[in-house]
Amino acid sequence: MTEDDLIAMLFAPIAGEGSLALRDDAALIAPSPGHEIVVTLDTIVAGVHFFADDPPDAIARKALRVNLSDLAAKGARSRGFLLGLSLPKDFWAGVGARDWLEAFARALGEDARLYACPLLGGDTVATPGPLTLSITALGEVASGRMVKRTGVKAGDALYVTGTIGDGALGLRARMGETPGLSADARDFLVARYLTPQPRNALAPAMAEFASGGMDVSDGLIGDLTKMLRVSGVGARIDLRAVPLSPAARALVAQGAEWFERALTGGDDYEVLAAVPLERAAAFERAAAAVDVPVTRVGEAVAGAGPPVFVGLDGTPRSFAKGSYGHF
Amino acid sequence: MTEDDLIAMLFAPIAGEGSLALRDDAALIAPSPGHEIVVTLDTIVAGVHFFADDPPDAIARKALRVNLSDLAAKGARSRGFLLGLSLPKDFWAGVGARDWLEAFARALGEDARLYACPLLGGDTVATPGPLTLSITALGEVASGRMVKRTGVKAGDALYVTGTIGDGALGLRARMGETPGLSADARDFLVARYLTPQPRNALAPAMAEFASGGMDVSDGLIGDLTKMLRVSGVGARIDLRAVPLSPAARALVAQGAEWFERALTGGDDYEVLAAVPLERAAAFERAAAAVDVPVTRVGEAVAGAGPPVFVGLDGTPRSFAKGSYGHF
Repeated sequence: MTEDDLIAMLFAPIAGEGSLALRDDAALIAPSPGHEIVVTLDTIVAGVHFFADDPPDAIARKALRVNLSDLAAKGARSRGFLLGLSLPKDFWAGVGARDWLEAFARALGEDARLYACPLLGGDTVATPGPLTLSITALGEVASGRMVKRTGVKAGDALYVTGTIGDGALGLRARMGETPGLSADARDFLVARYLTPQPRNALAPAMAEFASGGMDVSDGLIGDLTKMLRVSGVGARIDLRAVPLSPAARALVAQGAEWFERALTGGDDYEVLAAVPLERAAAFERAAAAVDVPVTRVGEAVAGAGPPVFVGLDGTPRSFAKGSYGHF
Repeated sequence: MTEDDLIAMLFAPIAGEGSLALRDDAALIAPSPGHEIVVTLDTIVAGVHFFADDPPDAIARKALRVNLSDLAAKGARSRGFLLGLSLPKDFWAGVGARDWLEAFARALGEDARLYACPLLGGDTVATPGPLTLSITALGEVASGRMVKRTGVKAGDALYVTGTIGDGALGLRARMGETPGLSADARDFLVARYLTPQPRNALAPAMAEFASGGMDVSDGLIGDLTKMLRVSGVGARIDLRAVPLSPAARALVAQGAEWFERALTGGDDYEVLAAVPLERAAAFERAAAAVDVPVTRVGEAVAGAGPPVFVGLDGTPRSFAKGSYGHF
C-alpha cells in the first residue's frame, strides 16, 4: 500500500470541507465572520503516552481528543485537524497491519463526526522508531474571546469539570498495579486512561463566562500552579472539594499516595476554569445545560505566591512534584 | 531542563504574535480581511529524512522549510508555525545536548525572521525513537486564490523554479556515492540536500497567475504526474528543458541513471506551476522581479492520460518509478 493508497482508501472518506479531498499540499480554512483561529498541537508516542498494544481505535481517539481538550478549554469550536502519522517501518510486515489501520481510521472518522472536527490534511511517514501521532487541531472563537491561561483574576471562582485523577490511576490499573480494586472500578479507570472524554460541549460556556482556563493534562496541581503563576495571582484550593470518581475514591481510601497520584499524575483532559464570582451561577447553569459536571474547588486570591492547598485533614499542604515531566 | 525551561529559554525568544508567549495551550491567528488560512503539516525523522548527525541548524531549517515550500506553491504568505519536537529519551544524557538545542532554536529563529513565519506553539515530548520533527505551518491567501493541484487546464504552460535534482543527488553526495565529482560540486549538492531553499518569494506571483501548482518534494516526475492526474489533464514535458545545476549536469554526463535520480529522487523543494498561456509572460516577469528563476518544461494537454515525457534523445520515454515512496 502506498501513501497515496492509504490516503485514498482510509483517510479521504473521513476528510472534510477544506481538506481538498486530501489531494493537495495544504488545507484551507476560513474562520466565520468575527472569529479567530485557535490552533494547538500535541504529539503522542507509543511507549510514552500510550501502549503500543492499545487498541487502534483507542489510540486514534486519544491522539485527537488530547487536542480537542485544548480547544475546549480555550472556548473554541473545533473546525478540523491535521494528522502527522509516523508508522514504524516494520509496520507493514506485521500481521493485520491493514486491519489495524482500518480500525484506526474508522475511529478517527467517528470522532471527527462526534466532535465536528473533520480531517483536513497531514503527512504519513515511515519511522525506525515507535508509532508517533502528532495532531494539529484548529478551532475558532469569537475575536478576542479565547480563554487564556493568563486571564485569571483575584476573586475568581476556580472550577474543574468531571472527576480528577481517573486517567493517572487508570494507568496504574492498566499496569496491574491496583490490587484490591473491583473489576468494575478497574475497568472504569482503564477506560478513562485509554480514551479521554474532552469537554468540548463546554466550549461556548468557557468563551462566554471564563476569565481564564486551561485543560488539565499534566496533573491538576501542576497545571493549576502554572495557570496561576502566569496570571500573577495566588489561590486557595480546598482539596477536599476535588471531585473524585467512586473508583478513584476506593483507591484513595487505601492510602494517601493514591490521592497524590490522582492530583499530580495527569491524563485528565478535564477543564480548569476561572470564573468571576458574579458570573459563577450563570456558568454553572450553562455547564449543567450541556451535561458537563463542574465543581468549585477554590478561588483565586491577590498576590503572586504559589497556591495554598488545604489537604484532606483541613490543614495546608504542599506537593514535591505537581505534574508529570517528560525530561 | 524541564519542558517549561526549554520553552522559556530557547523557544519563547523566537515566538511571535499569536503565540501568547508560548504560555498557553493554543495559539491564535486571524487571517487578514478577505483572506483564508492555508495550513500544511510535514514530519521529518532522523535516519529517514535527514541524518541524525546533520548539523542542528540544518535540521531546524529543513523541518521548517519543507513546510514553507508547500505554502509557497499554494500562493500563501507565511503567518507562523507550530513545532512538534520528539527528542530521543537519551538526548539529555548526550554530550552537548544544551548546545545542540541552542543551535537548533537559533537557526529556527533566524528562519522565522527570514521567512516572516514566527513560532506560534507546539509540543515537546521524549521518545524512545529517533529525533522527529512535525511542523504545521500556517499561511494566508486572498479568499478563493489558493493555488490547487487540481486547477491545471489544458493549454497551460508548465514551469519549474530553480534547478531540479540537486537534493536527490546531494543525498548521494552526502553518502560519498558521487565519485569523480569536484569538491565544489559535491559541496553544492550536499548543501542543496541539507538546506532546502523554498520559493516563498514567488507566492504572490503564484496566487496572481497560476491556475495550478504544487511543490516538488517527492520527485519531479511523480509529483507532476500526480498533479496532472488530479487535474484531469495530460501533458507533454520536454526533459531536455528541465533545468539542472552545473553540478547535476556533471553527474548526468556520467550516465543516464543520474538523470533518472535527479528527476525522481525528490527533496527538491522547488515549485511546479501551471500558468495559462496568456499570463505566462506576466508570470515570468513577476518571477524575475523577485529573483526566482523559472523554466518552462512543457504544457498541459487535453485528455486524462499520463504525461508524455520527451527524453534527452528526443524520443518519448517513461519511468518505472516516478517518486520516492515511504512504504
